[in-house]
Amino acid sequence: MTDHTAALDELRAQLGDRLVTTQAELDLHARNETYYPFSPPDAVAYPETTEEVAAILKTCNAHRCPVVAYGAASSLEGQHLATAGGISLDMARMNRVLTVNAEDLNVVVQPGITRKTLNEELRATGLFFPVDPGADASIGGMAATRASGTTAFRYGTMRENVLALEAVMADGTIIRTGSKARKSSTGYDLTHLLVGSEGTLGILTEVTLRLQGVPEAISAATCRFASVEDAVNCVILTVQSGLPVARIEMLDEMMVKGFNIYSKAGLPEAPHLFLEFHGSPAWVAEQMASFGEIAADFGAEGFQTATKTEDRNALWDMRHKAHYASTSFFPGKKLMTTDVCVPISKLAEAVTRSQAESRRLGLTCTIVSHAGDGNYHCGLSVDPGDADEMDRGREFSHTLAELALELGGTVSGEHGIGLGKMKYMDAEHGAALTYMRAIKAAFDPHDILNPGKMLPPPSA
Amino acid sequence: MTDHTAALDELRAQLGDRLVTTQAELDLHARNETYYPFSPPDAVAYPETTEEVAAILKTCNAHRCPVVAYGAASSLEGQHLATAGGISLDMARMNRVLTVNAEDLNVVVQPGITRKTLNEELRATGLFFPVDPGADASIGGMAATRASGTTAFRYGTMRENVLALEAVMADGTIIRTGSKARKSSTGYDLTHLLVGSEGTLGILTEVTLRLQGVPEAISAATCRFASVEDAVNCVILTVQSGLPVARIEMLDEMMVKGFNIYSKAGLPEAPHLFLEFHGSPAWVAEQMASFGEIAADFGAEGFQTATKTEDRNALWDMRHKAHYASTSFFPGKKLMTTDVCVPISKLAEAVTRSQAESRRLGLTCTIVSHAGDGNYHCGLSVDPGDADEMDRGREFSHTLAELALELGGTVSGEHGIGLGKMKYMDAEHGAALTYMRAIKAAFDPHDILNPGKMLPPPSA
Repeated sequence: MTDHTAALDELRAQLGDRLVTTQAELDLHARNETYYPFSPPDAVAYPETTEEVAAILKTCNAHRCPVVAYGAASSLEGQHLATAGGISLDMARMNRVLTVNAEDLNVVVQPGITRKTLNEELRATGLFFPVDPGADASIGGMAATRASGTTAFRYGTMRENVLALEAVMADGTIIRTGSKARKSSTGYDLTHLLVGSEGTLGILTEVTLRLQGVPEAISAATCRFASVEDAVNCVILTVQSGLPVARIEMLDEMMVKGFNIYSKAGLPEAPHLFLEFHGSPAWVAEQMASFGEIAADFGAEGFQTATKTEDRNALWDMRHKAHYASTSFFPGKKLMTTDVCVPISKLAEAVTRSQAESRRLGLTCTIVSHAGDGNYHCGLSVDPGDADEMDRGREFSHTLAELALELGGTVSGEHGIGLGKMKYMDAEHGAALTYMRAIKAAFDPHDILNPGKMLPPPSA
Repeated sequence: MTDHTAALDELRAQLGDRLVTTQAELDLHARNETYYPFSPPDAVAYPETTEEVAAILKTCNAHRCPVVAYGAASSLEGQHLATAGGISLDMARMNRVLTVNAEDLNVVVQPGITRKTLNEELRATGLFFPVDPGADASIGGMAATRASGTTAFRYGTMRENVLALEAVMADGTIIRTGSKARKSSTGYDLTHLLVGSEGTLGILTEVTLRLQGVPEAISAATCRFASVEDAVNCVILTVQSGLPVARIEMLDEMMVKGFNIYSKAGLPEAPHLFLEFHGSPAWVAEQMASFGEIAADFGAEGFQTATKTEDRNALWDMRHKAHYASTSFFPGKKLMTTDVCVPISKLAEAVTRSQAESRRLGLTCTIVSHAGDGNYHCGLSVDPGDADEMDRGREFSHTLAELALELGGTVSGEHGIGLGKMKYMDAEHGAALTYMRAIKAAFDPHDILNPGKMLPPPSA
C-alpha cells in the first residue's frame, strides 16, 4: 500500500478534525454487506461544501492519493470500499435538501441524504421521490450505481430520475451537467455518463431528481400461480397490455417459504406476484380489474388486495425483508445474492433454469424478481466456513451471469459492477470497453477516483 | 478545402458505384431547411452493411477525410452538412427493420429508416414508436440529435426511447452499447453518450427502440384562453396533477391566426391548447374530465373534442404545418425558427417576454410550444434580402438564447447544436465543455467525424 502521509498532512490542514484517522472510523468505513475483504482507508474525510470536495480532490490528485465516495454503505458490490487505500470521502455532512421546485416537479439535494429522509422532507409538498431499492441508500450512492428497485417498472431507475448533476472531477474542477429544463439537445449527455459511473469519473456534489405527485389512490394486491412460468407469463402480458403497474414483483415458492418462516406470512407455498397500482380511485380500480382478467387467464388464485396504508406497508415490509427471510432456513448461514436482468420474454426461462441449477448444485435458493423489468435476485444460503458450499455458490453465480448474457441480458440489473462483476465486463461489453477506458483515462489520468473498480485492467 | 483524392480512390475500390461524385448528388446532399451556406461534400457514399461503414471509416480515418452521416436531411441546425468537405455517408440503403421483439416491446432498426415507415411496418403488431418530431426524420438522425416533439411529455424524447445501439467508431471499430434487457447497471452509459452526439463520436448502424402498445382509445381536444399566462398555468397544473397527457401543445394568438390563413381553421384568434389523451376508453374519459376541470379554473373556452381518426389527423396535420402557416402572413418571406426550453414554471414568463421582444423588434412572430416540456419555437417571418430584418431576427434569436439560460433552461430543446448553437455551448455548459472535448479527442483523435459541429474551438 502506498504511503499517503503527504496528502493526509495537507488534507488535515484543510479539514481539521473533519479528517479522521482513528481505527474505529477506518474500520467503520471498511464494513460492507457482502463478502469483500476488510480494506480500511488511510483516512476518512467529511467535506461540508462542494468547494471542500474540490480542494480535497485537488490535493489528492497532486499526491496520487485514491478517493472513494462513501454514502450509506449499502452498496452490494463493494463500490464504497477503499481497496487501494487513500481517502474515504464520507458525504454524511452534505445531506441537505437544497431546493424543492414543486412547480417543475424536481428537487435539488446533496448526495449524502438518504431516500427515506428525502421523502420525509417532501411530505408536505404532495410530491415524492419514487425510486426504492429497499435499503435506505444515499441519493449520491443510488445515482452512482444506477440503482432501481421495486418501482422502476413504472417510474424508471436512477437513469430516468436524475435530471442534472453538480460534480467535482479528478483535478478539482467543478462541473454542472443538464439544466433545469425537462429536456435538452445541447452537447454530450454527461449526466447519464456520471450516473452509474460508481465514483470512478467524478464525485457527485448535487443531484437534481425528478419527483412525482403522491397518487390519489394506492392499492396493493397479491396472487399465486401454479408455476413460475404462469406467473412470469402473466407479467409479460400485463407489460404488453400497457398497464402502468407501479410495482410488480415475482416471488418463487422458496422465497414464499422464507416469508412464512421469517414473517409468519401464512402464504401458500407457490409462486406469487405482489403488485401495487397508483392513480385516481377509478383508474386504480380499472387497472386492478384489467390485471385480474389477465391473471385469471394464467390460473391465478388467492387474489388479496390491500388498500389501507398499514396493510400495504406490511406487505412491502415483508418484501423488503427478503434478505433476512432468505437466511431463515439455516439460521447460521449467510446470504449470497445475484442480480442478473434479462429481456422479459426470457424471464421464465431464466428463472426456471436458475432453479434447476440451484437444485443441481444442492443449494438452497430463493428468488425475488422485479419482474416487469426482467431483473431477478437469487438468494443462496451459504456457510462461509464451508469451502465446498462457497465454491458451489460461486459456480452458481457464474452460471447465472453467463445465462444472462446468453439470453441477451446483463450481469447486473441494479447492484452495479464494483469489485464483484469486473470479470464480466469484457464478455458483456466487448469492444465498447475500450471506449469506457478511454473516458476514464481522459477524465482521471492519475486513476485516483475509486481505483480498481468497474473497469478491469486491459490485460484481464 | 483539403484534397481527399486518395481517400476517394480507396473508397471507390471498396464501394464501386455506391461512391457517387456527380454534381447533382453533391448538390442534393448540400440542401438544408435553414440558412446554412451551400457546402457540398467531396463524395456521397451509400453503405449497405455495418462492415462497409467500418471499412469506410477505417479508410477515412487513415486519410484524415471527414465523414458526415446523412439521413433524411430534416435537421434544422445544419448537422448533416459536410462543411469541411469529405464524405456524406448516406444511410438510405441501411433502412430496414431488423427484429421486432413484440414481447419485449422493442424493435431493432437500421438508422436510415424513417419514423413513418417504421410505424407503417409495425402496424400489424399492435405496437408503435411514439416519438414524433413532425418531420419524417430518419431514426438515426433522430437519435443523433436527441429529437423529441409533440409526444415527448408522455413518452419521452429519443433519450428515453433508444435502448441500445450498434455504432462504428472513428477508426472503424464496431461497438454495441446497452443490452436487450430493460435496464442495466454495468459500465458507463455509452448509449446516452452517443444519443445526441450529432455524428461527432460515432456512426449509428443499429438502433434498438422502445415501443408502446397502440392505445385502445385516443381522443384529441382543443380549447382557448384569454392569455398565454392562463394557457401555460393550465399546463403547469395539468403536469403537477400527474395526468399522463399524450400531447399538450400551446399555440399563441399569432400562430392561430396563421392556421386560419393557411389551413382555414376558423379558430378564434386567442392562445389555444391542443391536447391528446391515450388509454382505455374509461381512463381517457376520466383524463379529459380532469383536464376539463383544471382548464375551467383558468377560464378555458370553446372546448372541442375529436375522437375519430380523421378528425384527430386533421388537427395534428394542421399543427405539423405550423412551419408553413407561420410563413403565410407575407408569402414572399422565409421562416427563422428558435428552439429554447425552460423549466415549465418559467414558461409563461419566457413566452410573454418573447412576444414583447418580437414586438419591440418589429418582427412577425408565431409561437408553438411543447408546453408540457417547457419547449417552445418562435417562428419569425423574415426576408433574406432585407439585411435589417435579418439582423433583427438574429438579435431576437440571441435574446431568446440568453433568456433561456437566465431562466435555468437550455438553448436547444430538440433541434440540437449543429452549426447554429455552438456559440452558446460555453455559456450553457461552462467547465463541463472541457470534458465533452476530452471525450471527442479520445474517441476521434483525428477529428474526422462531423468536424466543426457541436463543440466550438477552445479559443472561441
